[in-house]
Amino acid sequence: MVNLETACAELSDLWSPRVVARVGEQYVKVAKVQGELVWHAHADEDELFLVLKGRLRIQLEEQEVSLGPGELFVVPAGVRHNPVADEECWVALVEPVSTKHTGDVVTERTRSIEEQLG
Amino acid sequence: MVNLETACAELSDLWSPRVVARVGEQYVKVAKVQGELVWHAHADEDELFLVLKGRLRIQLEEQEVSLGPGELFVVPAGVRHNPVADEECWVALVEPVSTKHTGDVVTERTRSIEEQLG
Repeated sequence: MVNLETACAELSDLWSPRVVARVGEQYVKVAKVQGELVWHAHADEDELFLVLKGRLRIQLEEQEVSLGPGELFVVPAGVRHNPVADEECWVALVEPVSTKHTGDVVTERTRSIEEQLG
Repeated sequence: MVNLETACAELSDLWSPRVVARVGEQYVKVAKVQGELVWHAHADEDELFLVLKGRLRIQLEEQEVSLGPGELFVVPAGVRHNPVADEECWVALVEPVSTKHTGDVVTERTRSIEEQLG
């Protein structure tokens, strides 16, 4: 059993997703985020964001989606996006085992899956 | 954007999952449940339960997992289980597009995917 908020509370670093469950070929991850990540896309993979605490803005090229607790949004494969949190925000993610969280862009915030599996 | 609680509030029937999002080959569904479903297994498919409101007991053959709001559990493929809610409980599910929610068992509670897509 995984308590999403408890799992999030245990994270010490921002933008460092931690895998908490696996369902088929998808990982469920939690992350604490604040500020902005980076504009990127995942060529073949959808990415689900579910806000647990705080507010997350997902910038897309033609719109912006704002999510509060209990709200989710799926960024379709291939769509460029940039997650932004003006204040600390706790999120759950569902994305394929193969997904890099910064997609096609490698930055100082890119974490290997080994780091995410902790 | 999907608000999970709002989507659940709109359901009129118990044990009738509604698809609210798709991420890759997985559907995210919401359902209102009360009482017990039926003992069943999904031969090749994991099934994720996330409680939104109330409490869900997932009976397994050798143990029982009790989930409150914000808590999730993945029933691995092939594992027989029976979801039970003593009082009305609102849940989100993540399971493959191909999953029947009563698995290998067809009951009066079995809903076709067309019904779940609403």
